[in-house]
Amino acid sequence: MELPDELVEHGESRIVLVVMDGLGGLPDPETGLTELETASTPNLDRLARGAAVGLIEPVLPGISPGSGPGHLALFGYDPVRWNIGRGVLSALGVGFDLREGDVAARLNFATLDAEGRVVDRRAGRPSDAENRRLVERLRKEVPAPEGVELFFEPEKEHRAVMVLRGEGLSAALSDTDPQETGVPPLHVRPLAEGAERTARIVQDILDAATRALADERTANGVLARGFAAYERYPSLADRFKLRGLATARYPMYRGLARLLGMDLSPVADTDEGSVATLEAAFKDSDYDFHFIHFKYVDSRGEDGDFLAKVKAIEAVDALIPRIEALGPDVLIVTGDHSTPSRMRAHSWHPVPVLIASKWVRAGGVAGFGERECRKGELGIFPAKHLMTLALAHAGRLARFGA
Amino acid sequence: MELPDELVEHGESRIVLVVMDGLGGLPDPETGLTELETASTPNLDRLARGAAVGLIEPVLPGISPGSGPGHLALFGYDPVRWNIGRGVLSALGVGFDLREGDVAARLNFATLDAEGRVVDRRAGRPSDAENRRLVERLRKEVPAPEGVELFFEPEKEHRAVMVLRGEGLSAALSDTDPQETGVPPLHVRPLAEGAERTARIVQDILDAATRALADERTANGVLARGFAAYERYPSLADRFKLRGLATARYPMYRGLARLLGMDLSPVADTDEGSVATLEAAFKDSDYDFHFIHFKYVDSRGEDGDFLAKVKAIEAVDALIPRIEALGPDVLIVTGDHSTPSRMRAHSWHPVPVLIASKWVRAGGVAGFGERECRKGELGIFPAKHLMTLALAHAGRLARFGA
Repeated sequence: MELPDELVEHGESRIVLVVMDGLGGLPDPETGLTELETASTPNLDRLARGAAVGLIEPVLPGISPGSGPGHLALFGYDPVRWNIGRGVLSALGVGFDLREGDVAARLNFATLDAEGRVVDRRAGRPSDAENRRLVERLRKEVPAPEGVELFFEPEKEHRAVMVLRGEGLSAALSDTDPQETGVPPLHVRPLAEGAERTARIVQDILDAATRALADERTANGVLARGFAAYERYPSLADRFKLRGLATARYPMYRGLARLLGMDLSPVADTDEGSVATLEAAFKDSDYDFHFIHFKYVDSRGEDGDFLAKVKAIEAVDALIPRIEALGPDVLIVTGDHSTPSRMRAHSWHPVPVLIASKWVRAGGVAGFGERECRKGELGIFPAKHLMTLALAHAGRLARFGA
Repeated sequence: MELPDELVEHGESRIVLVVMDGLGGLPDPETGLTELETASTPNLDRLARGAAVGLIEPVLPGISPGSGPGHLALFGYDPVRWNIGRGVLSALGVGFDLREGDVAARLNFATLDAEGRVVDRRAGRPSDAENRRLVERLRKEVPAPEGVELFFEPEKEHRAVMVLRGEGLSAALSDTDPQETGVPPLHVRPLAEGAERTARIVQDILDAATRALADERTANGVLARGFAAYERYPSLADRFKLRGLATARYPMYRGLARLLGMDLSPVADTDEGSVATLEAAFKDSDYDFHFIHFKYVDSRGEDGDFLAKVKAIEAVDALIPRIEALGPDVLIVTGDHSTPSRMRAHSWHPVPVLIASKWVRAGGVAGFGERECRKGELGIFPAKHLMTLALAHAGRLARFGA
C-alpha cells in the first residue's frame, strides 16, 4: 500500500467534491479576465476567501487531459498509471457490466459512399431512437465469432459501444476510424504480439456489421476506435475507506464513478435537480464522499462561447449555497481540467481549486479565479494529491511514521 | 514511450528558446536586489508582463547543476537519468565523432615539480596554439595500447580531451586530478568490477604522456578527470518531432545540442552575431526549434562581478526585440541554472522563466526577476517539464486519454 492509503482511518466526517467540468480558462484579450474571473460568483468568492485555495495540475505541466484522466486524478488515482481507454470509458458510461479482460471499443455509425469511402464520420448525427434501432440490427444480424461473446450497446446520437468477451483477447488493436472523409475505414491492425487473432476477429465483426447495414440510407457503416481492455480498479472504499455516491447527469462521469466503486444517484433532468438529489442523499444516508458533476461549463468552453461559459459558471455559483447548507466537513470546488473558450478544447492550464474546512489557513485571496488562486496556500500541485488533502481536512488520515 | 513524447504531433509552429547561462542570482546585501532585478531590462519586463512566468528548478531542490544537466533539463531530458560525464561533454564540445561505448576523459595540462608533485593544475594557462602543439606531441609520442584506438583532441587553454575506443572498455574510473597542488597526480582506480583492465590501460597512457612531456617547461604533466562512456541519446526529432538548430558560441553548448541531434549554426564572434545568425536561419529554413545561448551572464557571475553580470543581462535584453521580431509562436527566455555573483559559482536557486505565446494567462507580474516570477502562473516547477510546456503552447501535443 502506498501513501496516503495506508494512513486512512474510518470516520464520521463527510466530503463533498463539486466538479465544474472544464472550469479553468484563459483571459479575454479585451478585458484581460478569464471566464471565471468575469463571472459574478459571490458564493464561490466568499468560500474562497475563507478556504484553502490553489491550482491543480491534472496530469503534468503542459499535458491536456481527457475527461477520464482529469477525473481519475481528482479521485486520487495517478492518471498516467490508471489511464483508461476510450472503449472502456464508453462501456462504463452506458452502464455495461464489464468483466476483467473484456475488450471494449467506441463505435461511430458513419455514412459510406458506393466505393466504401467515409462521407460522414457521424452519419448525420442520428437521433437516440434511431441509434437504438441501428444497434438492435447489429445485435440480430452480426454473429458472434466462435468462442467470443459479443455485445453492442447504444450510446448517444452516432455513438455506440462494442464489447468482446472471451479467452485470450487483446486490446492492442489499431482504430478503423480514419479521422477524415474521402477514404475508406482502415483495417484493424494488431499493435502487439499476440493481438493477431483478436484483430482478425474484430475485422470479421466490422465487415459483418457493414454488410448488415448496407441498406441503411445514412448509417451504412461503422468505425471503431479506442480499443481497451477492462481491468478492475481499486475502489474508493478499498483505498480510502470512503463510501462514495456520484451525482452526475452524463454517462461518462457516471461510468467513471462506477469504475471506482461509487454508487450512482438517479439522473436528474437539470443541474438544480442534481443538487436536489444530492440534498436527499446527504440527509438520508451514510455516504461519506459525494461527487457532484456539472457539465455545461466545459460544454460552453468547447463551443468557444466565452459569455455562455461565464453564465454556466454563474449558474453553478447560484447552487453553491444549497450545497454549503448541507454542512459537509470538507467542501471542495474545482474542475477536471481547463477548457478555455478561446481554444474550444481541453487545455493544460492548471485549474482553480478551493477546499473549505475548519482546518485551513486561508487569507490573502479576494475571490475564486485563476490568478487569485495562484496566491493561495495550496500553490500549484498535482491533482492526484487532492484526495489526500480532502482526507486530511476530513480528519481521516493518521500520522505518517513515528 | 512516455509523456509527453507519445502525444507529440507534427506542426508548423516554431519555438525559440533563449538561454541566458547562469541567469538566476542572489540579492546584493546593500540594495536587496538580485543582478536581474538590478538590471534595466525593459524588453524582458514587457515580455514577462504578457507571458506565463515562473521559476524552474534545474534538477531538484538544493541541487546545483553543471552546464550539462542544466541544459538537458531545459531540452526535456531528465537530468538525473541522462547525466553526461564531463569527458563525453568535452569530446562533444570539440566536435569529436563519438561512437557508442567510447570512453572519454577531460585532460588538463599541468606543471609538475622535480618530485612529480603538481605545482599548477593548469600549466599557466597555455595559449590555444600551445595547446594544439602539446596535443600533437601526445598524438605522436603516446602509443595506443593493444586493441584500443586512442585519440587526443585540443580544447582551449590547458584543456584537452582523450578518447579510447575498443572492446570491453569501462568508464568506471577514478580521476587522477588531485584537485590540489603539492601532491602528485592520483593513480587511476577501477570503480566497478570489470574496470580493472581499462584502469591499467589508462594508467599506462597517462604515464606515457608524462614521459613524452617531460622536457616541457610548464606543461610537463597531464591530469585526467570525468571518465565517461558515450551512449546515444534519443534526439529532439525522435522524441518531440522537432528539427532543432543551435546557435551557440561555446563548444560545450554546441556539443550538448549535437548530442540531441540538433544542427549547429556557424559560430559567431559576438552575441549580436549570434542573433544575426538566428535571424538568417529563422527566415531561410524550416527549423522549428531554435536554441540560442548567451554565455557572459554566467561568466560574470563566476567572476563574482555583480555589476558586470548586471551589464551582461542588459546586453542580452537589448537583443530581445530582434528575436521577438522573428515572430516565433513560442518564445522562452530562461537560464540553465543560477550563478549568483556573491557565490562565484553555479547554485541551486530556481531560475526565472518566461513563456510568451498567445495561450497564456499572464497578469500580476511587474517584470522579469526572481521575486516577480514567483508570482507567475507557472509556479516553481522542474525544468525537465519546460519542453512539455513549450510543445503545449506551440499546439503540438494531443490530448492525453479519452
